Amino acid sequence: MSVAPCVIVIDRWKRKRYNSKIIFGKASRMKIMVKHQQSERERQPEKKFVLRKQGDAGRQPAHSAKPPPAPEKKDKEEMQVMHFACELTEWSRAQHREGKKVGFVPTMGYLHAGHLSLVEEAKKNADVVCVSIFVNPTQFGPEEDFEKYPRNEEQDLQLCRSAGVDVVYLPRPDSMYASDASVYVFENKLQNGLCGARRPGHFRGVCTIVAKLFNIVQPDIAVFGQKDFQQATIIRRMIRDLNFPVEIITAPTLREADGLAMSSRNVYLSPEERQAALGLNRALMSLGTIGAGHPEAEPLIEQMRSIITQHGLVEDYVVIVDPDTLKPVSTVQQGHVALIAAFCGKTRLIDNRIL
Amino acid sequence: MSVAPCVIVIDRWKRKRYNSKIIFGKASRMKIMVKHQQSERERQPEKKFVLRKQGDAGRQPAHSAKPPPAPEKKDKEEMQVMHFACELTEWSRAQHREGKKVGFVPTMGYLHAGHLSLVEEAKKNADVVCVSIFVNPTQFGPEEDFEKYPRNEEQDLQLCRSAGVDVVYLPRPDSMYASDASVYVFENKLQNGLCGARRPGHFRGVCTIVAKLFNIVQPDIAVFGQKDFQQATIIRRMIRDLNFPVEIITAPTLREADGLAMSSRNVYLSPEERQAALGLNRALMSLGTIGAGHPEAEPLIEQMRSIITQHGLVEDYVVIVDPDTLKPVSTVQQGHVALIAAFCGKTRLIDNRIL
Repeated sequence: MSVAPCVIVIDRWKRKRYNSKIIFGKASRMKIMVKHQQSERERQPEKKFVLRKQGDAGRQPAHSAKPPPAPEKKDKEEMQVMHFACELTEWSRAQHREGKKVGFVPTMGYLHAGHLSLVEEAKKNADVVCVSIFVNPTQFGPEEDFEKYPRNEEQDLQLCRSAGVDVVYLPRPDSMYASDASVYVFENKLQNGLCGARRPGHFRGVCTIVAKLFNIVQPDIAVFGQKDFQQATIIRRMIRDLNFPVEIITAPTLREADGLAMSSRNVYLSPEERQAALGLNRALMSLGTIGAGHPEAEPLIEQMRSIITQHGLVEDYVVIVDPDTLKPVSTVQQGHVALIAAFCGKTRLIDNRIL
Repeated sequence: MSVAPCVIVIDRWKRKRYNSKIIFGKASRMKIMVKHQQSERERQPEKKFVLRKQGDAGRQPAHSAKPPPAPEKKDKEEMQVMHFACELTEWSRAQHREGKKVGFVPTMGYLHAGHLSLVEEAKKNADVVCVSIFVNPTQFGPEEDFEKYPRNEEQDLQLCRSAGVDVVYLPRPDSMYASDASVYVFENKLQNGLCGARRPGHFRGVCTIVAKLFNIVQPDIAVFGQKDFQQATIIRRMIRDLNFPVEIITAPTLREADGLAMSSRNVYLSPEERQAALGLNRALMSLGTIGAGHPEAEPLIEQMRSIITQHGLVEDYVVIVDPDTLKPVSTVQQGHVALIAAFCGKTRLIDNRIL
């Protein structure tokens, strides 16, 4: 018998809090791992309880139950890996009861330094940090790279451990959406241009998964990367329009030494494409500093286009927009945003710069 | 200067909790009303603080500021009325920190005994109860009765007080939706028939406002009436698909002595229409008890239709459906639901019965 996963918080002794994980058990038993969390320095050995059906007590002594799996090796930060929504919600509620602020970084995994800078930002602004790793199928189009999107769970967990993440939420792929799921969150203004125009349904998928994750993780702050500028703007709008009690922080794009914006998709690039890909950042940097002169947008856009083309990239869009409405501007001022999406071989890359 | 509304919780003394309301102040001052909540029986007089800009201290003694408005008369339940989302969220978080379960009953006001039975259900299942009163414009079609929908704020508050509600959330009409709001929650399977077919956009409006209210009130349980059966089914689906950590309870429909389902819209009925309206419940009751025989649905539906017509009502729909999918069934069994919507004069009434 596989037992429906859930978290039981056993609090028989005041001031002691327990975090328990039900693992799969046989017949009428559930094995419960209880980790004492009284203090990080005073960890007590793990204890095992066996729950039996009423009337079944004593038939099999607790110690004769199958031994639990060896406890996962943990570093000093005691990072926890959780697979079930209810575990996360219970963890987050426990943090809040202790007056702690929960920071959240949603990712699709294959983590790189860019993600870790988001974790760093979350740690600065919250007491505990949760990272979710989930390659969300609903934000990929049928012709897109969902299947081949790079994954490396083991390395991701190691990176999260090193970065001092408290909890990694690693939902099982088939646990996130019911087969008859029929409720979605959609944004219908900001999503109409830029990446939304090229990727129909993409931001509906993004909004829906982020809403789900917000409800599961119950964060106080959430960190998104500036690289996905349209995404961050839409999530900010979603937070406002649906009253999520979450503060969003947008963290600057991390770049390789030569200026290429870090991205999990960079792994797709051949050595030649890797060189060509520099065209995005070079085009953005070519705009220099926007002074008080309010220059026309069009010549600046043409200037970026010509650099893109020189690098052998195929433009998807090159625009300068208002950061709140994402609408193209005709004259440029500080705070406006230049955005580029271009194909580098078969790989679609994006980058942007706040002017 | 009008000060942006927010809640400050002042907790200078341990174990004492304060609930403060910032009211609109002039210039560099905000007046703060502090209500002691140490104990229900030991209410202390209200105190007033004045916040000044730094360097401005002492220029005007606190006691010379305008006197605060007379404290609202409260009964022994100390019901609070809140107008701003952040007040609610802060209140709810404080309840959760104290280990209390928050119950929630969203309403459009003009409360009747049916609503109060939902409050009663919430009180049974939670430690504290919040009722929201908001006539949500986005769930009314352009030809519908948003403007003339009955309202009686004073009476609603009095009924909530008597029912032992802890907090009434009474959002200002213009504070709920930004003028450039662009994010919605929609359900695209269950909403396609029944009331959804007649009222395009209705359930998008319902899902969006309920998602917003859930995010604001952060309830543990929410109570909906069975009378709006399709609505309760869709909200249950939304909770599942967006992972809201909320348990939904559906409470039975309350009826007048003669069987008419209670509804705020009954106030529209003339004495003759009031009699005709009995046709809905009579049609539903005519089905009697569904045994193990799995009768055909069609003759039962025809039977209801003829009673509807005999009462001079104009059918919108008369169906028997599966309670989870809301799809019509061909043979009827226990647990299936008969639903009727019919026009009684200009007033559209609905009713249903779980068989």
